[in-house]
Amino acid sequence: LSLSLSLLPGCYEEYSSSSSSTSRAAGMNGNGPSKLVDPLEDPVPGLGTYEDFNTIDWVREKSKDRDRHREITKKSRQSTVALLHSVSDAFSGWLLMLLVGLMSGALAGGIDIAAHWLTDMKDGVCLIGFWFNHEHCCWTSNETTFQERDRCPQWQSWGELITGTSEGAFAYVVNYLMYILWALLFSFLAVILVRAFAPYACGSGIPEIKTILSGFIIRGYLGKWTLIIKTITLVLAVSSGLSLGKEGPLVHVACCCANILCHLFTKYRKNEAKRREVLSAAAAVGVSVAFGAPIGGVLFSLEEVSYYFPLKTLWRSFFAALVAAFTLRSINPFGNSRLVLFYVEFHAPWHLVELAPFILLGIFGGLWGALFIRANIAWCKIRKSTRLGHYPVIEVLVVAALTALVAYPNSYTRMSGAELISELFNDCSLLDSSQLCGYKQVHLADRPAGEGLYTALWQLALALVFKMMITVITFGMKVPSGLFIPSMAVGAIAGRLLGVGMEQLAYYNHDSFIFKGWCSPGADCITPGLYAMVGAAACLGGVTRMTVSLVVIMFELTGGLEYIVPLMAATMTSKWVADAFGREGIYEAHIRLNGYPFLEPKEEFDHSSLAVDVMRPRRSDPALAVLTQDGMTVGEVEALVESTHYSGFPVVVSPESQRLVGFVLRRDLLISIDNARKRQEGVVSASTVVFTEHALAQAADAPPPLRLRGIMDLSPFTVTDHTPMDITVDIFRKLGLRQCLKETEDTEEEEALQVVHQTSFTPLLFYS
Amino acid sequence: LSLSLSLLPGCYEEYSSSSSSTSRAAGMNGNGPSKLVDPLEDPVPGLGTYEDFNTIDWVREKSKDRDRHREITKKSRQSTVALLHSVSDAFSGWLLMLLVGLMSGALAGGIDIAAHWLTDMKDGVCLIGFWFNHEHCCWTSNETTFQERDRCPQWQSWGELITGTSEGAFAYVVNYLMYILWALLFSFLAVILVRAFAPYACGSGIPEIKTILSGFIIRGYLGKWTLIIKTITLVLAVSSGLSLGKEGPLVHVACCCANILCHLFTKYRKNEAKRREVLSAAAAVGVSVAFGAPIGGVLFSLEEVSYYFPLKTLWRSFFAALVAAFTLRSINPFGNSRLVLFYVEFHAPWHLVELAPFILLGIFGGLWGALFIRANIAWCKIRKSTRLGHYPVIEVLVVAALTALVAYPNSYTRMSGAELISELFNDCSLLDSSQLCGYKQVHLADRPAGEGLYTALWQLALALVFKMMITVITFGMKVPSGLFIPSMAVGAIAGRLLGVGMEQLAYYNHDSFIFKGWCSPGADCITPGLYAMVGAAACLGGVTRMTVSLVVIMFELTGGLEYIVPLMAATMTSKWVADAFGREGIYEAHIRLNGYPFLEPKEEFDHSSLAVDVMRPRRSDPALAVLTQDGMTVGEVEALVESTHYSGFPVVVSPESQRLVGFVLRRDLLISIDNARKRQEGVVSASTVVFTEHALAQAADAPPPLRLRGIMDLSPFTVTDHTPMDITVDIFRKLGLRQCLKETEDTEEEEALQVVHQTSFTPLLFYS
Repeated sequence: LSLSLSLLPGCYEEYSSSSSSTSRAAGMNGNGPSKLVDPLEDPVPGLGTYEDFNTIDWVREKSKDRDRHREITKKSRQSTVALLHSVSDAFSGWLLMLLVGLMSGALAGGIDIAAHWLTDMKDGVCLIGFWFNHEHCCWTSNETTFQERDRCPQWQSWGELITGTSEGAFAYVVNYLMYILWALLFSFLAVILVRAFAPYACGSGIPEIKTILSGFIIRGYLGKWTLIIKTITLVLAVSSGLSLGKEGPLVHVACCCANILCHLFTKYRKNEAKRREVLSAAAAVGVSVAFGAPIGGVLFSLEEVSYYFPLKTLWRSFFAALVAAFTLRSINPFGNSRLVLFYVEFHAPWHLVELAPFILLGIFGGLWGALFIRANIAWCKIRKSTRLGHYPVIEVLVVAALTALVAYPNSYTRMSGAELISELFNDCSLLDSSQLCGYKQVHLADRPAGEGLYTALWQLALALVFKMMITVITFGMKVPSGLFIPSMAVGAIAGRLLGVGMEQLAYYNHDSFIFKGWCSPGADCITPGLYAMVGAAACLGGVTRMTVSLVVIMFELTGGLEYIVPLMAATMTSKWVADAFGREGIYEAHIRLNGYPFLEPKEEFDHSSLAVDVMRPRRSDPALAVLTQDGMTVGEVEALVESTHYSGFPVVVSPESQRLVGFVLRRDLLISIDNARKRQEGVVSASTVVFTEHALAQAADAPPPLRLRGIMDLSPFTVTDHTPMDITVDIFRKLGLRQCLKETEDTEEEEALQVVHQTSFTPLLFYS
Repeated sequence: LSLSLSLLPGCYEEYSSSSSSTSRAAGMNGNGPSKLVDPLEDPVPGLGTYEDFNTIDWVREKSKDRDRHREITKKSRQSTVALLHSVSDAFSGWLLMLLVGLMSGALAGGIDIAAHWLTDMKDGVCLIGFWFNHEHCCWTSNETTFQERDRCPQWQSWGELITGTSEGAFAYVVNYLMYILWALLFSFLAVILVRAFAPYACGSGIPEIKTILSGFIIRGYLGKWTLIIKTITLVLAVSSGLSLGKEGPLVHVACCCANILCHLFTKYRKNEAKRREVLSAAAAVGVSVAFGAPIGGVLFSLEEVSYYFPLKTLWRSFFAALVAAFTLRSINPFGNSRLVLFYVEFHAPWHLVELAPFILLGIFGGLWGALFIRANIAWCKIRKSTRLGHYPVIEVLVVAALTALVAYPNSYTRMSGAELISELFNDCSLLDSSQLCGYKQVHLADRPAGEGLYTALWQLALALVFKMMITVITFGMKVPSGLFIPSMAVGAIAGRLLGVGMEQLAYYNHDSFIFKGWCSPGADCITPGLYAMVGAAACLGGVTRMTVSLVVIMFELTGGLEYIVPLMAATMTSKWVADAFGREGIYEAHIRLNGYPFLEPKEEFDHSSLAVDVMRPRRSDPALAVLTQDGMTVGEVEALVESTHYSGFPVVVSPESQRLVGFVLRRDLLISIDNARKRQEGVVSASTVVFTEHALAQAADAPPPLRLRGIMDLSPFTVTDHTPMDITVDIFRKLGLRQCLKETEDTEEEEALQVVHQTSFTPLLFYS
């Protein structure tokens, strides 16, 4: 089943664009003879890039971009062509955002339409043409009334088609079997495609995108193969009826689009920091198209996934999110001129007393969130450590079969997650014929529960238990899977149950002191749909620990400022309750599970240690591997680099006086030496490597020195022994450093350089 | 007229709370004998505080708070009382936000009601009771129909009251005169109160709040007197009919509330950085109550005024903004259950062709913004440099008289800015009787302009010219004055004019290729109200350079995602056009005009200089004033401090070896020595000042040494000569430094410390 990754050479090369400005160094030695580089040219391919599974140096990248910008501004004064270039450069960011918005919106529309069609395919087929989904199929028949919109002769269920009648046990069994078969087929295709062509396409992608945005490099994670496969398998996975959503993966899809489109613009292709700005905006686009909530999307990117989010990115994210939302709307995948399936409009206001059940929902959401994270992480660990992990295809098939088997008999689990949420959010109108609105209709506002409603409540309770259990084992399988919809579904069910309960309580006790005055008989006082919405927000908040962005997304769904307070109360309670059981949200937990290096920007570092406590090497360890500024030969340098596995080396004055001169990255060093050996006349192993501005006088017969001042970072960051760790962590976070050096201050001690790196305070190893 | 500031001792003491944790030092020398301080106690009053017109050290403040937090967490494990304290400490932030929201919302409601009443007072009086405004007065009379809501016998204009008839030239003249008299009275009271009790209450306050949030200290700017006087004078200034708004000053009022409420909580009273987090949230609250737009308010704070905005502040700002909005709504100052005076609902969609006029409005807004800033700054400079500045009261009276004189005859300038905007935003319905809707009503959608509309257009054009000119000289006078409403009014007038023009163009040319297909006769295709809204956004954007927050505020006013694209197009165009004439918004321009130290976080530093270029002292200057770690007596230190005016002094090993040991702030040094002389036995001028951990052996008869390691920052930030300026500026911005030191690297050179401070790269001097 594994077609081997080497078959797809293009797939894992996305990040290795051959940028090569030497960044900070370039701005520095303008007066020396060693001015090697023009920031706009590529003298040595690969110089200034990063290896896979490595972290970028934000300072260097930003500096590189400033150099580039300065160069363009300077040139723009010289000729008209350069001026035009400068203008096009300034607007390229906006153009890129436009393209990202258009492409993501179009893809999201396509995914919606395809998923809708395939989901209906599990139930039956359109006789006019198999490419119509249920709704489109019945549009063509004019005879149907509004009530019977979805019952038309053109659409036949599989049972009807095969047995010739839509009634009877046999037709039901055929329908049941076909449902399971299609579910198995879709899930099999999804997992097989992911396994074969793009292993990175599985999961929700948000943990990895958070890591990438914080500066990590995972080649191919946002490549074109991932995009193609994720788009296709997302449709299949959603259609298979598994308990997963498309919202998280849509963020991944939007980020893939952005990453691919970045290749059109030199500015973004060559700069990892600039590219991450675009990716931050793309995350906003993803949520914007998933929920039809552009502002919520921008806040989601800001609150949940982004690491470096300057104001310029805020503007651009907003622009891109809007473009995407409008593209999606003009595709009109739901046929209702709305951006989302579950647009709702409530009319009745809420009463202060209702805050109690809302907070109760918040507590439920928080408990469920904490429980879900624990259970899911435990299950993922079992998958990793036992033989289960070796059979991902079988796992997916078993879970899909189980889901289909249990889900079919219950109409609330049979329908897709988004449809379920939409139905639960809806307020009952007089026309509504669904079971949930099975009241004994006395008149519109008086609502004693009828038999239909009691049945619905039982089914919902069963659906709740089932969804809660199946989601734990579904999230983390090797298919694209989002968490938003399943979490919201759990919350919406719980909320609706509580809402109906409150409604009946109010109906039968409208004279009690609680309901008196605001909920008299005949008044439409309690909206169960609002409870469902609050519950959905609470559960999603408990799982992801989003707050503001979640409330804003919900606000954009309802459009009423009115309901922000209940939503706010529930999400805040949910976050506090969940935080009491563990501060990590599901995405952070998965980041830790997968061992990605990630320095959480939100959390406070709360230990009272000093930088000296985490510095390496310790007293007893061997001294730090260093280069000297003019005392080593090419051979010696190569030997040192070979014998160690560090990502970079400090350059000092001499082995005796360990005064810090600069810092050289391993990759740059290797590439430069390699390049010099190939191209530069006379560079042999015995050549001296020189980092100073002016070379020392040499014997006449000595080989010419290799000047490498150009690749050295002349201003490495330093801290002192006494710098408290919290400040050190702050410096790393805010400036985006890879490492920080420390010179010995006390001249009486043995002179020795020490280094702090990110791993010193994360349990995760990446600087090695 | 100047009652002298010394009369109000309480007023200018807001910031001088006697906090005194020694912050970073405290976490550092836990093992030494010099452990002087417990972060929760106050050993030396005043230690760790700042002087007026000085900049705070963000790193120190944040560190101090972390120490405090750590201490509380540690203690909470020991006793139940301490645990309760720890819990209450954790929730104090939320409680504070709740209080800020409630207080600001209540104040905003009060201001709205009072301003409404006083504004109506200029026109006439209610016979039932003078404390009713026009609308309330007529509510009591049941006889009036909807059409004649504002004409009721209980309300009499001054002319009517005095002459006995509401018709005729004499009544008109009396009304005119009374209008001018009231305007003069209100503006006189406003300026006199500001002059006498709180000079800081004038202006919009946003430039100063931006500066304060960036770390500057202006004592009393957010004090209780400023709050009281600003609230009262704001009502007076708005009622006087001057061309100013209450939105900017409301931000100032909310910040005053927050600052005063901070005194209730030790955590915020004693920490300048924490307090600034609360102030950032308060800025959001201000906009939230001004426009009824909580999300827009938070984004305004994030985009426009805040400097340090962690995610925690985002959540809290949002919470506070919501609380404030709901408080305001329950006060219901406009009597329409809405948060704002100009709530609008549009129904007709817009067409892609209309983007052209929208962009045109954007260009107009940008040009007007750039022009306004230039003209206003030029006028402020004239005021500062000529004798005009010496007569602020007369200036206000003259401008008020001029405004009233010119404004009265034109109904669009006579009404308040907010009412004008509200009328311009409104779409015409069939019931509407205003001149702006004076169409020849054929049927609802067909709208050839009638005579009423032509008159209205003329009046609007005159109002536009008048508003444009008078706003330039009004903003910056010594009364509270906001810019939002006047800017929006200018834009709304221009937009409405263009909108009506487009409408008529479409009506008379509906067969032309532009309008064909989407604007046939009878179709309601062009909404002049939408043009007014887009114009208002464009002009406000041109003046303030807001983008996202502006669009979101407008979105919250209309509630329709539909209209975001026109708004976005106009604000973006406006920003680009205005930026082409100068990158500063009005607030930045006023910050520069007033000479506040402010390091713009948005702008890129674009010079290719190195840190060495801005370091002081230069080669030719005298060496930097330094302290030695154990070689100076108290007398010598005092002499050095007296003879210089630096805010802080580096501590070095000895005069010969200028190895950096730490950094001591002038204020801390003076307070400690002063305190030691008073309290500590045997400290005289000849005592040695010791910054080392262990004192050197001394002669037996020598006075005891003064140990000051506790007040020394052991980990001052350092840069190298080669650090590029852009990185240096980034470090200053992101970490919030006051200064950065540089040790000489090259041992062959003369050893000398150098320092970079903020003033090195801002033209503004504050480190002195």
